Amino acid sequence: MKKVAVVMGSDSDLPIVEKAINCLKSYGVTAEVRVLSAHRTPAEAAAFAAGARENGFGVIIAAAGKAAHLAGAMAAGTTLPVIGIPVKSSTLDGLDALLSTVQMPSGMPVATVAIDGAENAALLAIQILAVTDTELADKLQAAREANRAKILKKDREILDKYN
Amino acid sequence: MKKVAVVMGSDSDLPIVEKAINCLKSYGVTAEVRVLSAHRTPAEAAAFAAGARENGFGVIIAAAGKAAHLAGAMAAGTTLPVIGIPVKSSTLDGLDALLSTVQMPSGMPVATVAIDGAENAALLAIQILAVTDTELADKLQAAREANRAKILKKDREILDKYN
Amino acid sequence: MKKVAVVMGSDSDLPIVEKAINCLKSYGVTAEVRVLSAHRTPAEAAAFAAGARENGFGVIIAAAGKAAHLAGAMAAGTTLPVIGIPVKSSTLDGLDALLSTVQMPSGMPVATVAIDGAENAALLAIQILAVTDTELADKLQAAREANRAKILKKDREILDKYN
Amino acid sequence: MKKVAVVMGSDSDLPIVEKAINCLKSYGVTAEVRVLSAHRTPAEAAAFAAGARENGFGVIIAAAGKAAHLAGAMAAGTTLPVIGIPVKSSTLDGLDALLSTVQMPSGMPVATVAIDGAENAALLAIQILAVTDTELADKLQAAREANRAKILKKDREILDKYN
Amino acid sequence: MKKVAVVMGSDSDLPIVEKAINCLKSYGVTAEVRVLSAHRTPAEAAAFAAGARENGFGVIIAAAGKAAHLAGAMAAGTTLPVIGIPVKSSTLDGLDALLSTVQMPSGMPVATVAIDGAENAALLAIQILAVTDTELADKLQAAREANRAKILKKDREILDKYN
Amino acid sequence: MKKVAVVMGSDSDLPIVEKAINCLKSYGVTAEVRVLSAHRTPAEAAAFAAGARENGFGVIIAAAGKAAHLAGAMAAGTTLPVIGIPVKSSTLDGLDALLSTVQMPSGMPVATVAIDGAENAALLAIQILAVTDTELADKLQAAREANRAKILKKDREILDKYN
Amino acid sequence: MKKVAVVMGSDSDLPIVEKAINCLKSYGVTAEVRVLSAHRTPAEAAAFAAGARENGFGVIIAAAGKAAHLAGAMAAGTTLPVIGIPVKSSTLDGLDALLSTVQMPSGMPVATVAIDGAENAALLAIQILAVTDTELADKLQAAREANRAKILKKDREILDKYN
Amino acid sequence: MKKVAVVMGSDSDLPIVEKAINCLKSYGVTAEVRVLSAHRTPAEAAAFAAGARENGFGVIIAAAGKAAHLAGAMAAGTTLPVIGIPVKSSTLDGLDALLSTVQMPSGMPVATVAIDGAENAALLAIQILAVTDTELADKLQAAREANRAKILKKDREILDKYN
Repeated sequence: MKKVAVVMGSDSDLPIVEKAINCLKSYGVTAEVRVLSAHRTPAEAAAFAAGARENGFGVIIAAAGKAAHLAGAMAAGTTLPVIGIPVKSSTLDGLDALLSTVQMPSGMPVATVAIDGAENAALLAIQILAVTDTELADKLQAAREANRAKILKKDREILDKYN
Repeated sequence: MKKVAVVMGSDSDLPIVEKAINCLKSYGVTAEVRVLSAHRTPAEAAAFAAGARENGFGVIIAAAGKAAHLAGAMAAGTTLPVIGIPVKSSTLDGLDALLSTVQMPSGMPVATVAIDGAENAALLAIQILAVTDTELADKLQAAREANRAKILKKDREILDKYN
Repeated sequence: MKKVAVVMGSDSDLPIVEKAINCLKSYGVTAEVRVLSAHRTPAEAAAFAAGARENGFGVIIAAAGKAAHLAGAMAAGTTLPVIGIPVKSSTLDGLDALLSTVQMPSGMPVATVAIDGAENAALLAIQILAVTDTELADKLQAAREANRAKILKKDREILDKYN
Repeated sequence: MKKVAVVMGSDSDLPIVEKAINCLKSYGVTAEVRVLSAHRTPAEAAAFAAGARENGFGVIIAAAGKAAHLAGAMAAGTTLPVIGIPVKSSTLDGLDALLSTVQMPSGMPVATVAIDGAENAALLAIQILAVTDTELADKLQAAREANRAKILKKDREILDKYN
Repeated sequence: MKKVAVVMGSDSDLPIVEKAINCLKSYGVTAEVRVLSAHRTPAEAAAFAAGARENGFGVIIAAAGKAAHLAGAMAAGTTLPVIGIPVKSSTLDGLDALLSTVQMPSGMPVATVAIDGAENAALLAIQILAVTDTELADKLQAAREANRAKILKKDREILDKYN
Repeated sequence: MKKVAVVMGSDSDLPIVEKAINCLKSYGVTAEVRVLSAHRTPAEAAAFAAGARENGFGVIIAAAGKAAHLAGAMAAGTTLPVIGIPVKSSTLDGLDALLSTVQMPSGMPVATVAIDGAENAALLAIQILAVTDTELADKLQAAREANRAKILKKDREILDKYN
Repeated sequence: MKKVAVVMGSDSDLPIVEKAINCLKSYGVTAEVRVLSAHRTPAEAAAFAAGARENGFGVIIAAAGKAAHLAGAMAAGTTLPVIGIPVKSSTLDGLDALLSTVQMPSGMPVATVAIDGAENAALLAIQILAVTDTELADKLQAAREANRAKILKKDREILDKYN
Repeated sequence: MKKVAVVMGSDSDLPIVEKAINCLKSYGVTAEVRVLSAHRTPAEAAAFAAGARENGFGVIIAAAGKAAHLAGAMAAGTTLPVIGIPVKSSTLDGLDALLSTVQMPSGMPVATVAIDGAENAALLAIQILAVTDTELADKLQAAREANRAKILKKDREILDKYN
């Protein structure tokens, strides 16, 4: 199975990013976690992106805040799918990171998830790998069903409590 | 090769969506184009999502405007990757569609591209299929290089013109 | 008298939603409280909406945050009036939930109240039932007058204090 | 059957409001159309709201732009349900009207629809009347089914055209 | 000298409004403080506005949050200058109150100050009274000079500390 | 009677500002119209503000777009009331001008009207002069009544047309 | 004298960028105009930035729209001052480009000017060169005075016309 | 070497501004720190700007919040480069200060950095001085390399921890 890269622009993004790492691990997907900065280590970031496919990666997840360029920098360097997590890290509630990540020009898509949506970034990466991996697809389906069961249980509890 | 579904909430979204269809065709990817509404034909939309994987789809692209629920409705019904195109179709410049598409709750990712970013949605779908398809990956790489060449040519023209 | 359904996308919305439940109870209106998710239990949500009228409901109140699709999903499944409460549950102050709830396409109205405006959602539901229920209309009028009296009392207190 | 009042703050809102009037007529609902201004004829507006219930109205629809106070002024004067249409009429894309209409204080709900969403305002009014009017509920259901059929037809046309 | 009315939509606005009251007092301007609600006591609010000029008021200051209609309601009922203080009291950082207060239609101006800008509202009221009151104008000028001196002193302190 | 100054940051603001000039003239108020720039002629702007009171002005109206500093610059130089008109002149729909005009620091109020709200700026200036000028107050009241009559006539026309 | 680089992410930005080029020329500053894309020719862009100082540049001006990364990419590759022009090129009025350009992380400043503010970008570049170039500083001062004279002339014309 | 002026509109901005002062000191650049208010000490502010070049300054950094006019006032008074720091000091997350600082009219650039981006303002000032100062340029380059090394070290630590 292809690996998933989880790159962040600064280790201050780690509390957000850890939710992605844990989610990937819980599905048995190998995550390689890196601190790569579009601005402070651009050569390393570009080299990582350029070599990602041949180094066995299937998806790159990139998390960054403010003028969040990391996901775009990854997208510029590879044709692998790149998932962007806009991180709330300034005064603007993450709106700056969201627009910097999602409003990419034609030719360079970044698959953007919600502000601080690290778990969804991981799930999206797993969904991508699961397109051709039946076992992984089955795990996703099982998790969906468990999630559904949890809501149904909550529904019954609330019904008992209020009705 | 898996097919890509291109669904739209209304045929008024077609002028935007056509850029995705054309892009997919130019890569030789089979696109199935559908009008499915999260609100007006929810049962058909849910049935389509539920059957998408076994019907040979690898990715679903969903385009919708305003309170854009279609991509989320697709995501709720399948564990295939779902790509959302927020369509500008109200007075609010597409900001409503962007937030309705990208701010999905945990467990239900939608890979969101730029407002009206239909071509990037198609490219992202192709990138997803290309994770395990070397030929498709080569085509993406070739397009990147062609794109790069075009910019380099423009650069030389501008250099000639202004310097 | 018709019942009012109070549905929420997640039990984490309960602290907001409880204000609606309490308000309905104080008017003697029967509320049925449910956890139904547009994304995690879409079939149950759709079934609930589809059967709501014949199951004795007159109004559905739906509360959800972020890309808030629950009210829209209810509206898609019934021709009963649906009231949407946008819940602040992300970094964006509830603006995402507001736009996702109010900017519905033609044909599928959601009666949207203020962000976290659960008490007003309940009052609106009661107003709807009171269109043809004189007793309920009288209670609403009495509450208005009590509310008015409270403001007049505050006004006199402030006049005493500052003037 | 109760009547529906359609009030606007200025006759410049008429092109938007006409969609509501036409929709109400198409359902056989009697609409009384008024120009009442929260700022320029506040006494008339207050008197209209105060007498609406006894004058046979079941719902009031109020359309206004900019600092849109008309729906709130109606809500202050009656316990009938009031539906607010925020009208785009300034440089701010209707965001000012939306927030002025939807962010009502506790005790005074306004059922807000999308910016310029006049047709949905009418449908919501009809849904409210249909809570206790089976014939009207049947018409709404029939319109839903017709709407659904139209989408299914579009879906088939698009399927024919692109696939 | 004319009096200044300081009206608020709810006594929860008092912590903000007190800055206006104190400022008016410090200039020897008589302030009459009232709780008047555009929605809960509209008749009293309208009556207050209608009688304000003949009751000896020169300016009305109105503070309200969310869909802040109070200043507009005052403006509708008098031709005295009305100053609006948008109060931050919802999740939207006061932007809703600002737009509801400032974006008034032609014919009904509200002199809007900054969000929570109660002191400036009082100063503006005093400036208005001082147009024809030399003594008050002199006090304003003296305060300006004191304020200026304070900044110059801070400037010297900072110069000493850092340079 | 005191004069009203109407200053603009650039003569490109004239089409907006003319509505203020015409309104002042229609009330018989003397307007002195100036082009004064906070950035390009700051000394002249400061001198104008500093001398405004002794030169017979009662109010200053200042119109500017983008990072609209002119009203603030006027406010810094005089204790006369300063009215700010935020002018839409950039890509941002006037939001930049609105915030630059209204969010003034404590001690320096600017009475802000709606974006492009030049007529209201003039009316506010007249209201300020009318605090101590009964004749002007009577004219304002007469205009209100004429305006009210116009709405009542529109109301009757609409009633005739639609009911 | 050092040269100024004027780089754009796409030749579609040329109509905006030309104002910068013309301004630089009018001051006798040598501009080298390039099309360099942070995403499509990242290696060329990085190489250009890395060599800019030794190639005789003093300032880099970078113009880009949407998720505007070009100025940041330049800043990452050089310690020369980089000026960013956010270009309006999407549905979002340039707000996306503004936030993507200005909200840079610590250590990597981009000197951001107004949306589409190409002339100001050029003037800022000239101001930077003029810190140590008296002749250039004199030209800037002369332009200021000419600009001031133009406003004074407009002021007199307006005074003649309206007063 | 030229000095850098660090001016703030109020000493309440000092906690933000201190990061700029410390950064300048760490590079051996002389900073003169001043409290100058565009509104409360406009004459002093204008005089400071007008004399800045001949008093040995090369760059002016100006920090201000809300309707942040200080940087613009500096820019109006000098042709030296002026760097603006928008300070978050209101309810609006600094958006008001950002737009008031960056959206300057043609002819008067302000080099705007991120909201509260004081360190970047200092670095930008140093970059400007370093255009013609090789020693300073070398220090900037060394800091870049140190910064890069720090990220590379973090990257290795994260690699060790998670992989």
